[in-house]
Amino acid sequence: MSIQKPKGTQDLLPGEIEKWQYIEAKARELCERFNYREIRTPIFEHTELFQRGVGETTDIVEKEMYTFLDKGDRSISLRPEGTAGVVRAYVENKLYGEPDVSKLYYIGPMFRYEQPQAGRYRQLHQFGIEAFGSVDPSIDAEVIALGYTFYSEVGIKDVTVEINSVGNPSCRGVYREKLQEFFAPVKDKLCKDCQSRYDRNPMRILDCKIDQKYGEGAPTILEYLDEECTVHFESVQNHLSAMNIPFRINPRLVRGLDYYTHTAFEYKAAGIGAIDTIGGGGRYNGLVGQIGGNDQPGVGLGLGLERTLLILQAQGAELPQVKPLDVYLIGLGEAAEKEVTKLLQQLRLAGLKAEKDYLGRKIKAQMKSADRFKASFVAILGEDELERGEITLKAMATGEQQTVKLDQVTQVLREKRL
Amino acid sequence: MSIQKPKGTQDLLPGEIEKWQYIEAKARELCERFNYREIRTPIFEHTELFQRGVGETTDIVEKEMYTFLDKGDRSISLRPEGTAGVVRAYVENKLYGEPDVSKLYYIGPMFRYEQPQAGRYRQLHQFGIEAFGSVDPSIDAEVIALGYTFYSEVGIKDVTVEINSVGNPSCRGVYREKLQEFFAPVKDKLCKDCQSRYDRNPMRILDCKIDQKYGEGAPTILEYLDEECTVHFESVQNHLSAMNIPFRINPRLVRGLDYYTHTAFEYKAAGIGAIDTIGGGGRYNGLVGQIGGNDQPGVGLGLGLERTLLILQAQGAELPQVKPLDVYLIGLGEAAEKEVTKLLQQLRLAGLKAEKDYLGRKIKAQMKSADRFKASFVAILGEDELERGEITLKAMATGEQQTVKLDQVTQVLREKRL
Repeated sequence: MSIQKPKGTQDLLPGEIEKWQYIEAKARELCERFNYREIRTPIFEHTELFQRGVGETTDIVEKEMYTFLDKGDRSISLRPEGTAGVVRAYVENKLYGEPDVSKLYYIGPMFRYEQPQAGRYRQLHQFGIEAFGSVDPSIDAEVIALGYTFYSEVGIKDVTVEINSVGNPSCRGVYREKLQEFFAPVKDKLCKDCQSRYDRNPMRILDCKIDQKYGEGAPTILEYLDEECTVHFESVQNHLSAMNIPFRINPRLVRGLDYYTHTAFEYKAAGIGAIDTIGGGGRYNGLVGQIGGNDQPGVGLGLGLERTLLILQAQGAELPQVKPLDVYLIGLGEAAEKEVTKLLQQLRLAGLKAEKDYLGRKIKAQMKSADRFKASFVAILGEDELERGEITLKAMATGEQQTVKLDQVTQVLREKRL
Repeated sequence: MSIQKPKGTQDLLPGEIEKWQYIEAKARELCERFNYREIRTPIFEHTELFQRGVGETTDIVEKEMYTFLDKGDRSISLRPEGTAGVVRAYVENKLYGEPDVSKLYYIGPMFRYEQPQAGRYRQLHQFGIEAFGSVDPSIDAEVIALGYTFYSEVGIKDVTVEINSVGNPSCRGVYREKLQEFFAPVKDKLCKDCQSRYDRNPMRILDCKIDQKYGEGAPTILEYLDEECTVHFESVQNHLSAMNIPFRINPRLVRGLDYYTHTAFEYKAAGIGAIDTIGGGGRYNGLVGQIGGNDQPGVGLGLGLERTLLILQAQGAELPQVKPLDVYLIGLGEAAEKEVTKLLQQLRLAGLKAEKDYLGRKIKAQMKSADRFKASFVAILGEDELERGEITLKAMATGEQQTVKLDQVTQVLREKRL
C-alpha cells in the first residue's frame, strides 16, 4: 500500500518544473534590475502575527490557516501569505534604521486550507515585493511597473492595469459615511456578508459580485479625496505615464483592510474566457505600526504563480519543458565506456551539459535517449576511434558528422555552443 | 509590543541572502550540467511517510518532527528531510515507467524540533540529489562526483571523500553476526544507546563517539563482501579514479538504516578546528520498496546549506553580499526627476540594473547611496543638461566623467557593461 501526497498539494516534476523555473528566474532577474533584494522569512510564524497583520476577522485567518501547537505549546501557523512575515522581519531586524529604502521581494510557498479546485491548492506559491520607508509616489508607480513588466516579459498578453486611490483614514472616514447613507435604503436587501460589511467596511460592498446591482450610482472615493491624496494620486499617474505603463482608473477598486492608504491597483488578463484579476497590491502606510513597529510607510504587490502559469497556458504560450543537453556520450565497449566516464566529468567541469547511459542500453536506445533530452550533439566513441585517440561528433539537428581528437572535444563543443 | 520570529528560525536578509543565492545557483547550475532535474514535493506530508521512509525508531521521527492534525483530522508532518518525499513522488507519479533513469534534485526547507545551536536551526535547508532506476556503479560515482564538484566550485578547500561498501542484506547478515561476536565480551560496558544497537544494528556501534575504544580491532564489512558487492565497489572506485575524484576507503563508514546497500560515502572538511562531516549519501536499493513502490534501485546524496555556509565562512571564503548596480540616476529639479523616471524604466527594460532616490535626498546623500549599492556609474541630469538633451555619466571606480546624448545613454551603458 503506497502513500499519497496530502490532499490539495502537488508534486512539481521534470517537464513541469522547467515552467516554474522559467517564471521564477524571470521574477528574480526582474527584481535585480529594479534593485529589489530577496528576503526569506520562516515557513511558519506565531499565529498572532497573522491575526494582527492579515486581520482576525478575515476568512484566511478565521477558516483557512494551518494552525497547531508546537512541542513547546506555542501557537504556530504555516504562513497563509507573504506580507505579514516580511513586515515582522523588517521591524524585528530594525531595517527601518538603514539609510536606504528597503526594497524587498519574496517568492515561495504559502498555505491555505481551502477546498482544492483547478488552480487552487492548499500549498500555493506567491511572488511579491514590498518597499518600506518612502512616501514618494514614484515608488508606488515603480511597484506597479514591476508587476506589469513581469507579466509582459513572461509572455502574458493583454494585461491591463487598474488603479485607484483609497485615500487616507481621514477622507476615507467621510466617504464611508456617504456610502452608508447611499446603501441605507437597500441595506436589508444586501447579502449576509454585505450586511455585516455595511458597518465594518462598506467599501467592500462595491466589490461584492452578488450585490453589484445595488452599487450602481454609488458615490466614489475619488469625489472625497483631500488635497494630499489628490496630489499623491495624480503624481502616481504622471510617473506611470512617464514610464509608458498603460493604466485605467477604476474608482470602485478597493482593498479590504484598514491599513491600506492611497494607491490600490490590480492587474487583469483574459484567461479562459472571463477577465480575471491576476495580481494586485497597494500602499499600506498603517501596516508596519499595526504589526508593532514605529510607523513606516510601505507599498507592495503580490501575485500567485499558479494563476500566472494557468493564464499563460490558457493563452497558448510556449514554455520550456526541458533544458537541452550540449552532448550525449556513447561508448562502445568496456574501454570506451571508461573513457566516456572521464570525458563526461571533463565536459561538465568545463561548463557543458553532458549525459550518458546508465542502463547498459544498445546504441539505438541511447540515441533515443539523447533525443528526449534534446541533445545538440551525440559523441560516439568506438574501440577503433579510442585507439586513434578520436571521437565522432554528430549534430542532432542536421545529422552532420565530424571526427575530432579526444583531447580537443571539450574545446570544440564549447565553441559550437557559442 | 512587537512579534518575534519563532524560536530556532531565521530571517535571511539582504547582505546575507546573496550568499544563499550564490550557493543555490551553483547547486542548480551544477545539476543542469550533470543532467539532474528539479523536483518539488510538498512542505508537509502524511506522517506515516516519514515513519516508513526515515524510520519509526529514529530520533528524527520519534522526537523532532513538527506533527499535527489538519482540519480534516489527518496526521501531517512538516518534512524533516528530503528523500522520503522524493521517493513518494517517484512512486505516486510512476516515474519508474519512464525510459530514462530518473535523476532528480531538490533544494529547500526542512523542519526539526531540536535545541537551537550555532548553525542548527528548526527550519534548516538541504540540497540533495536522487537517481532511481540504475544499478550501474558509474552512477554511484557520478553522485559522489557531483557533491565533490559542488563543494569545490563553491569554494570549500580541502574536501576529502570517504567511501565504503555496506554490502547487501545477505553479506551484511553474516557481518552482523561477526560484529556481535566481537562486541559480546564488552557488551555490558557499552553506552546505553549502543547496548540497544547491539541487537538492532551493531554496525552503528562503530559510529559511536563514546564507545570508540571498544571498536578497535573490530572486523570490517569489507572482509565479508560477497562477489557481487566486491565487483560493484571496485567499479565505483575505478569510475571515481577515471573522473579524477580523490577518495579514501573508510571501512568503518556506515549509514544507519537497513535499506542502504553497497556504496556509502561522506564528505569531510576542516571548519573551525575539527574535521567535520559536511554531507554524504549512498545507495539504497531497498527504500523504494519500503515506501510502497515496486522495488527500484536508488542512490543519492544530501547536504545542509547552513553547514556549507558555516564552513565557507570559517575558511575565510569571500562570498557576495550585494550584486552591483549598473547605474544610479540622479535628477536635479522637477523636470529632470520626471525624465529620470522615464529613463529608469527604459534602462531596466534594456536589462540594466538601475536605481534612483525615493527620499528627496540631496545629491551628496544620493552619491553615498550609489556607493552602498556598488553602482558602476552614476548618471546626473541637471536642468541645463536636460535642455541640451544630454546627461553626465560618472564612472565610480575612476571618477572619470563623460557627457552623452540622452537618447543614447541606454546603448552606451549596455556597451560599457560588456
